[in-house]
Amino acid sequence: MKIIKNGDVCTPAGFAACGIKAGLKKSGNTDMALIFSETPCESAGVFTSCRFAAAPVKQCIETLKKGNKCRAVIINSGNANACTGKKGLENARKMAELTAGKLKVSSSQVLVCSTGRIGVPMPMDKISKGIEKAIASLSNKGGGEASAAIMTTDTFAKKAAVSSRIGGRNVTVAGMAKGAGMIAPDLKGLHATMICIITTDADIERGFLQKSLVESAEKSFNRITVDGDTSTNDTILVLANGVAGNRKIRQNSSDATLFRKALDYVTTQLARQVVVDGEGVTKFVTVKVEKAASEKDALKCAKTIANSLLCKTAWFGCDPNWGRILAAAGRAGASFNPDKVDLYFDKTCAVRKGMGSGIPEEKLAEIMRNEEFSVRLVLNSGKSACEVWTNDISYEYVEINADYHT
Amino acid sequence: MKIIKNGDVCTPAGFAACGIKAGLKKSGNTDMALIFSETPCESAGVFTSCRFAAAPVKQCIETLKKGNKCRAVIINSGNANACTGKKGLENARKMAELTAGKLKVSSSQVLVCSTGRIGVPMPMDKISKGIEKAIASLSNKGGGEASAAIMTTDTFAKKAAVSSRIGGRNVTVAGMAKGAGMIAPDLKGLHATMICIITTDADIERGFLQKSLVESAEKSFNRITVDGDTSTNDTILVLANGVAGNRKIRQNSSDATLFRKALDYVTTQLARQVVVDGEGVTKFVTVKVEKAASEKDALKCAKTIANSLLCKTAWFGCDPNWGRILAAAGRAGASFNPDKVDLYFDKTCAVRKGMGSGIPEEKLAEIMRNEEFSVRLVLNSGKSACEVWTNDISYEYVEINADYHT
Repeated sequence: MKIIKNGDVCTPAGFAACGIKAGLKKSGNTDMALIFSETPCESAGVFTSCRFAAAPVKQCIETLKKGNKCRAVIINSGNANACTGKKGLENARKMAELTAGKLKVSSSQVLVCSTGRIGVPMPMDKISKGIEKAIASLSNKGGGEASAAIMTTDTFAKKAAVSSRIGGRNVTVAGMAKGAGMIAPDLKGLHATMICIITTDADIERGFLQKSLVESAEKSFNRITVDGDTSTNDTILVLANGVAGNRKIRQNSSDATLFRKALDYVTTQLARQVVVDGEGVTKFVTVKVEKAASEKDALKCAKTIANSLLCKTAWFGCDPNWGRILAAAGRAGASFNPDKVDLYFDKTCAVRKGMGSGIPEEKLAEIMRNEEFSVRLVLNSGKSACEVWTNDISYEYVEINADYHT
Repeated sequence: MKIIKNGDVCTPAGFAACGIKAGLKKSGNTDMALIFSETPCESAGVFTSCRFAAAPVKQCIETLKKGNKCRAVIINSGNANACTGKKGLENARKMAELTAGKLKVSSSQVLVCSTGRIGVPMPMDKISKGIEKAIASLSNKGGGEASAAIMTTDTFAKKAAVSSRIGGRNVTVAGMAKGAGMIAPDLKGLHATMICIITTDADIERGFLQKSLVESAEKSFNRITVDGDTSTNDTILVLANGVAGNRKIRQNSSDATLFRKALDYVTTQLARQVVVDGEGVTKFVTVKVEKAASEKDALKCAKTIANSLLCKTAWFGCDPNWGRILAAAGRAGASFNPDKVDLYFDKTCAVRKGMGSGIPEEKLAEIMRNEEFSVRLVLNSGKSACEVWTNDISYEYVEINADYHT
């Protein structure tokens, strides 16, 4: 497996993309991206489980259900097209139709994603002109621009790419993602104002592609949380156009293992970038829970710690107030004996058998002054473990969210 | 029922109290309170369900289990005596013994509460001298001082008192509470760095007293959240000394109804004061959920909204970003049809049938500029309702919690 530095969604063969200004953002920044494959793609998706799923989420689901090979994804930022009723769904479908018409493909081959403010009707005149402009701007060098055009409160574009020798050919998997706030995972589905588009030139079975995406998302995007809040528009899509000409990747083959490794690399890299770019983030914190009675218990503890406002503000302040970490674990609903619990900051033991280890607070504060550190809770109640990636909560987080208008 | 303005834990007959400086707080503020009843009290308690329950919580539970009539509660702030192991429990028991010895009562008649930093050994020399000083300072005018001495990040002392004609006598119920951060409710138990002591001169059956406390806490302290975080030391105690000389209050009597009304008034007032004084709070927000399929669904939605960091920061900024409220309700795990949902800010409709009502944002922002407003989510899916009291999250919240040392 070879990591491709500065790779983007156009790195796999046969994809073009662009990022243009449709005039949806007050800031005047680019706000529309288009990804196009020269050949039809096996496609798969994972979506928010929020009851207020946005119109574009519904459009993606209904389109993927048809089983067509897709050709394009049209994405806008600056407007979520969520809580916009029947008209919103009509508009999402119209976005697919307009894109399809100009690209001369079927509208059931076009997927739609939106991100931005909830509850604002989509300005279809701007969208329509934007789509025209986007199609005229398509280029096999447009991947970087596409990843910039989907940003909202993001401060950098998120990209990753990797290539592997699979089925006799070089197969490339690449992706882009956006998301900085309203980021929180859930075991049942995917949550976050998070959009991630993965492209690959692999030739792959559709069923295995969907299964791979679900499992890969579970171990990447489903293991991050920025603010514990969740969204209406979360979408991960993968398009596989088969241009690499490899032997078709099928489940339970050695090719499948290689593909999964490449896909996992891309989803993990993108998920970590979302946390690094979390709103107002100053620190990247890995929360590990080990020796839990079950993986479910480990995950309950890790997510409760990672979402605790008191833990996150203490991390921001480099305050080694480990009592907050234990208190969060204690209310997580996991089963363990509090008198057996150990806690580490990186490799330094802060708590042994449920009590302070006696380490001077300054030693712990020193670790917390790093931009990245880990909190490792050892429950000593079983054999299960898990890892969640999160961040601190700063003044800037409050500032960004006290008045958010893209 | 008559509300007693400026009433405190010494307002019911037969109680003395005090608040003194034991030297536990760096600030030099008072940090120890003692409440003493001249006659033995029927006593009841509700406690944290956090797995890391603090030593004083264990001491209270073991003492109440003995079924003795209690005489005193000794409370310190500045140190939580949590995550302090066997030595911590010994110290909590020792606090009861020292208090009992000087008061010439049994140590199984003394309850202990602690609040402050987790994981710091209790300085027993200071505690011992403090207890001596506290006993010498007991006065039937000391209720106000007691309520000040239990504060940590609180900015005002929380008190409430009411009297009712019950069983032929004037019966008084009064209480004090502390708590500003690590405040979050849970259906199964009581959570929060919250200590609440209720005194009453009522003559009442012990079993009914405990049942009343559980039910009353469920509709008051269990309906508040400041930061969604929870604690190791939460305690509500009620002491009933019977000095009023009323006909003994028994379950299912008209006296019982009158007592419950008085108790509910005190718990509700104190719970609301905790939210008003929440760390960094600028707004008191009532989250109402109506026409839910079940009370459980209503509570899920209300608590998810009340704990959502994105909702709370938007409230702080007077940003009428109602999409965040719907998104929170949508991930709460409640069952409802998103296309039927209405949302109101006070009496102004923001969302009708899952879509923006068309009201100008400025109208909603105007409501949000008040110090108190309500958010009312009408699910139109059933007949159940609930109400939760919460607050916004401000820069000051982050400041307070980035470096907390009492």
